[in-house]
Amino acid sequence: MAVFTKLTKDEIETYLKDYSIGKLLSYEGILEGIENTNYKITTSNNNYILTIFEKRVNPEELPFFMSLQRDLVTHGFDCPLPIENNNGLIINKIKGKYGVIISFLDGKQIQSILPIHCREVGSMIARFTNITKSSKLKRNNSLNIETWLNIFEKCKESNDKSYYKYFEILEKELFFLKKNWPTNLPKAIIHADLFKDNIFFIEDKISGVIDFYFSCEDFIAYELALAINAWCFDSKTGFKSKNYSSLIIGFKEHASLNINEMKALNVLLRGAAVRILVTRLHDMIYHPKDALVIPKDPKEYLKILEWHQKNTELEL
Amino acid sequence: MAVFTKLTKDEIETYLKDYSIGKLLSYEGILEGIENTNYKITTSNNNYILTIFEKRVNPEELPFFMSLQRDLVTHGFDCPLPIENNNGLIINKIKGKYGVIISFLDGKQIQSILPIHCREVGSMIARFTNITKSSKLKRNNSLNIETWLNIFEKCKESNDKSYYKYFEILEKELFFLKKNWPTNLPKAIIHADLFKDNIFFIEDKISGVIDFYFSCEDFIAYELALAINAWCFDSKTGFKSKNYSSLIIGFKEHASLNINEMKALNVLLRGAAVRILVTRLHDMIYHPKDALVIPKDPKEYLKILEWHQKNTELEL
Repeated sequence: MAVFTKLTKDEIETYLKDYSIGKLLSYEGILEGIENTNYKITTSNNNYILTIFEKRVNPEELPFFMSLQRDLVTHGFDCPLPIENNNGLIINKIKGKYGVIISFLDGKQIQSILPIHCREVGSMIARFTNITKSSKLKRNNSLNIETWLNIFEKCKESNDKSYYKYFEILEKELFFLKKNWPTNLPKAIIHADLFKDNIFFIEDKISGVIDFYFSCEDFIAYELALAINAWCFDSKTGFKSKNYSSLIIGFKEHASLNINEMKALNVLLRGAAVRILVTRLHDMIYHPKDALVIPKDPKEYLKILEWHQKNTELEL
Repeated sequence: MAVFTKLTKDEIETYLKDYSIGKLLSYEGILEGIENTNYKITTSNNNYILTIFEKRVNPEELPFFMSLQRDLVTHGFDCPLPIENNNGLIINKIKGKYGVIISFLDGKQIQSILPIHCREVGSMIARFTNITKSSKLKRNNSLNIETWLNIFEKCKESNDKSYYKYFEILEKELFFLKKNWPTNLPKAIIHADLFKDNIFFIEDKISGVIDFYFSCEDFIAYELALAINAWCFDSKTGFKSKNYSSLIIGFKEHASLNINEMKALNVLLRGAAVRILVTRLHDMIYHPKDALVIPKDPKEYLKILEWHQKNTELEL
């Protein structure tokens, strides 16, 4: 659905000349992306992804995203490895934009989430943050509670009455979060976008994690909260307790949570729901009529938020 | 045939505690190794190789071997990636020896060499040296012409008359090589041990290259010469011209040879044959009676040397 920058065979071949990854055999645009342009390229050597960064990624932050992925791979974590060209450069120009070549991961996203997948996700988050908690890389979360407030203020400029219910709930909730957001929990570089489309599976095992362009330093327990909301709720049937307990079991195989993290979980889950809710609401209100990408329904995350407001005692 | 250092499940689990590669599920010693001890270990995350370095590898050189493999992988070349533990260390102690964990490569060595495989080998050498010709890593070839002379002197101390024919031929050949060895050819870090057992294939495509413990800086054309001897001669039928032309075609897909390299080829091929011949002869004469590893027959490489002495005009 979204190949924003069109490339010809010649343009890709010219770009590949500086690399030692073999001769271009074929290429195809990947439609799933909604932020950047991605091509799957097949060379005489292997498959790779050529990513061209569109306006939503800040070029100054590209070195962070590339270093993070490389550090993860060198610690044995399965994610794309950014490939250096013959000059030792990872980030290069193509058609006036920044591009990178990263290794191709086998596997695909799963269709229906089962507890076994959630256990894998929990385990993956623990291994990820075990690696990144001592990382020297720095990037603040650009979608933190202050940003949610700003996005919400922008949403409220809308005159569309159908959103008033959202505004009312979010007004109160943001006030609550502002007052109760924890300050002193263990941090690490987190992925911060562990939705189903960013985690590949082969059979029921994670084969790799992609799309690191929200990654930032934040609470490990906030990463868990984001993942719980994404993996343990069904838009029809609501909270899925077996998914939840499996995710936590998976996490605890490789890491542990302290008492402050446990106490803060409900607030983090509500914040994690608001994080997605306000951005979806914003995109729904302000998406251009001719957008290539259909905005996601904010309602799903309103329900998740309301569930956490009522169920404050989830056990860890 | 050669798991020199035996490890228990507990010992491997203890070693893995410092890594973020998941929980140990199973492990098995790999019998093919003749230099180091290798275990294939399967964790909840993936397959890996645990290598323990035995006495033939100089511990001071381990950082070179590890950095080389990491540089190759980050340039898109398929070889094992050394995995860092949570302290950022690749080389760690296990049972009083040095050990590393590297990623596991799928694929296996091929049984019968066809031209299609030789083309892959030539192409791989070009891509390898395109990456390493600007490498800042340094390691001299510890098996250079001076070393061959020393090894040969040691061989000649033997009183076993069955080797006298070898001694006579090598005496003259080493004199010839000493006089004619080129000095000014393009260099790169080369693998220097590209035998069939160190190149894995999936179907007829190379899936990866292993065992970098002879890698060093030397002539790119010498790497080609070593590979030609290893891939384009059959112990029964001799020189295989289709294998040879395929290997050269593969190489030329990604690199070129200058006039000096072409002129030096015959000398390099003879030197490459002597390199293997003298070490095999030495191992045959001096291997301990109770050795785990059966020495390889030097005769195969005597024939290759004699072929190059007679056929000095191979076309590149």
